Amino acid sequence: MSKVNLKLSVGASALSAVLMCYSSAWAMQPVTIIDQGVFAAGGTVIEAKTTFDPYHPTAAGQTLHGDHTVVHYQVPQNPRQYPIMFLHGAGQHTRTWDTTPDGRDGFRNLFLEDGYPVYLINEPHTADAGRATVTHTIKATPDDQFWYGQFRMGLWPNFYEGSVFPQDKESMEQFFRQMTPDTAPFDVSVEAAAITAAMERVGDNILVTHSRGCSVGWAVGMHSDHVKGLVAYEPGMRFPFPRGEAPQAIPNAGFFGPNQPVEVSSEEFANLTRYPIVIYYGDFIPKTVTDNPYQDYWRAALQMAREFAACINRHGGDAQVIELPELGIKGNSHFPFAEKNNVQVAQVLKDWLEYKQLTARAQP
Amino acid sequence: MSKVNLKLSVGASALSAVLMCYSSAWAMQPVTIIDQGVFAAGGTVIEAKTTFDPYHPTAAGQTLHGDHTVVHYQVPQNPRQYPIMFLHGAGQHTRTWDTTPDGRDGFRNLFLEDGYPVYLINEPHTADAGRATVTHTIKATPDDQFWYGQFRMGLWPNFYEGSVFPQDKESMEQFFRQMTPDTAPFDVSVEAAAITAAMERVGDNILVTHSRGCSVGWAVGMHSDHVKGLVAYEPGMRFPFPRGEAPQAIPNAGFFGPNQPVEVSSEEFANLTRYPIVIYYGDFIPKTVTDNPYQDYWRAALQMAREFAACINRHGGDAQVIELPELGIKGNSHFPFAEKNNVQVAQVLKDWLEYKQLTARAQP
Repeated sequence: MSKVNLKLSVGASALSAVLMCYSSAWAMQPVTIIDQGVFAAGGTVIEAKTTFDPYHPTAAGQTLHGDHTVVHYQVPQNPRQYPIMFLHGAGQHTRTWDTTPDGRDGFRNLFLEDGYPVYLINEPHTADAGRATVTHTIKATPDDQFWYGQFRMGLWPNFYEGSVFPQDKESMEQFFRQMTPDTAPFDVSVEAAAITAAMERVGDNILVTHSRGCSVGWAVGMHSDHVKGLVAYEPGMRFPFPRGEAPQAIPNAGFFGPNQPVEVSSEEFANLTRYPIVIYYGDFIPKTVTDNPYQDYWRAALQMAREFAACINRHGGDAQVIELPELGIKGNSHFPFAEKNNVQVAQVLKDWLEYKQLTARAQP
Repeated sequence: MSKVNLKLSVGASALSAVLMCYSSAWAMQPVTIIDQGVFAAGGTVIEAKTTFDPYHPTAAGQTLHGDHTVVHYQVPQNPRQYPIMFLHGAGQHTRTWDTTPDGRDGFRNLFLEDGYPVYLINEPHTADAGRATVTHTIKATPDDQFWYGQFRMGLWPNFYEGSVFPQDKESMEQFFRQMTPDTAPFDVSVEAAAITAAMERVGDNILVTHSRGCSVGWAVGMHSDHVKGLVAYEPGMRFPFPRGEAPQAIPNAGFFGPNQPVEVSSEEFANLTRYPIVIYYGDFIPKTVTDNPYQDYWRAALQMAREFAACINRHGGDAQVIELPELGIKGNSHFPFAEKNNVQVAQVLKDWLEYKQLTARAQP
């Protein structure tokens, strides 16, 4: 009540000034864009090998283009040499990297403002890239509270203590509405093939992935020559290892079974040693076994990530696993790039890019 | 071959200069962006009224947020007062208004460059806004050639004579891959409710719609106070009329049955008379009955559009139907804003906005 009274007691122009301050704190730093747009890449075509009769149309003789990626891009003035390509995780779309649930700049704007051309990838079979070559049923099964747990926001209905996830009603509403369903069963090789094709068009780049997108990212990183740095936020499963070198699966109390490594050829794996890799995790991941099923899933994921990084390094590569709390950045869920401290989380990545000499400006 | 030889015979720097010219012809005019992002609006929540057990998660006690719209926006420096909100048609997503199939600027960039804040709407149940509150099966049925006909590109495999659709292989590939499926059955009232909610956030605006999106646009225009101008490219079906004033359905040889008007209350219809409306159609629409089923569908659509505009004007409104060929703009399909002459098509709209006094700059 006192808040309402306060608002009513200020004059219109004073209120307007307050609102302007509030709004300018949220608006981005102005950026001059020299090019922006969208393209499709990769994908397959299915075709019935008969003749199409336009006067009596059936599926006969028609085609269906599907399984492609759709990529949105922006290039700022005086751009850096390497664009950043951002790949979302399961159930998400490009919003992962765009406006945060509480309406502030996400990584898209933060890195664009810093001079990076930004490419937002729609994984095949999601969002703009929804056209698939197989029939699929999307079930309207309520699952918000499950994902709340899996995303380590807390154990419903309570946020973990110290959480930096924006917890007001409107932010939660925005967050739940940034989910969009897969339109076909997930298949790493199909998704990776399309994104590898997109890189033929984009050229050398830094690939930043999240969650399930990380497993696609490892596959892209093994097959494209254009990855110059690979950044993975919170990979869960499907870490690759050279055949014969995979560790044991890691049992855990989560809902996705034991954390199983994926065996790949030594040639494929060797490709992951050609450029620097960094893997980031947020907070609330215990060091030891717990009966909280969601947290225990992430305990196993983090342990497998460390095995993966060690294997990369044994093979002459450069991989690092960083828990943000070790840097003093605390309270993050599975979405560190979208929470209240995301400017700080972005700075950690910017520093890493600087350290790995990936920040040069493009030749004019 | 001679083209390849020519390329090989020029020196590296000359070639580079040629490529730069080529590329700068395609790149946008630089625009300084002062704000950009994404938000969800409207939608519903389904919830099982039981208790959620995070340790044994089932659907019980969980929620699902769906049926919302997802809107991407950009605000240029020194913006005009009224943003333009763009709504795509069936099977399409925001790419309708973005990069053309042949890789040039679409209406998104052309109007942003001209100072309009641009809002790209994802209709509920498509693309980024794919989360629905009903279960739905997406069939992978080949249908590219049917839509080629329905979109008046030609009668497969031949383009209509004089078509300005970019016909090279890569453009066709890009076009077929800009389709993305509906994730729930189309329902005008659900789609319109979410977009009406988005307008509460955006404020007064100019709504530009395409094809099936036009029928959603009429519904939004009847229910939001924020529409200050309504532009419809190629509406097909579901034109609203006041109860008792609807004309007879128009039979046609197309595949969607007779063109049926929709009856609404006189109060709802009256809302469509509060602001200017313009309806544009492309080329290849015959004046009289034809046995080409696709063209005959559009003959009926155009006829119903004229009935609709006449009814608006009888009720004191301001609606106009413009066939682009009457302005000397020829060869357009169902996608006039994305074909080779789209700069010219955009200019027609810019002139209309000027004429209707919708072009003022925002107060700084």
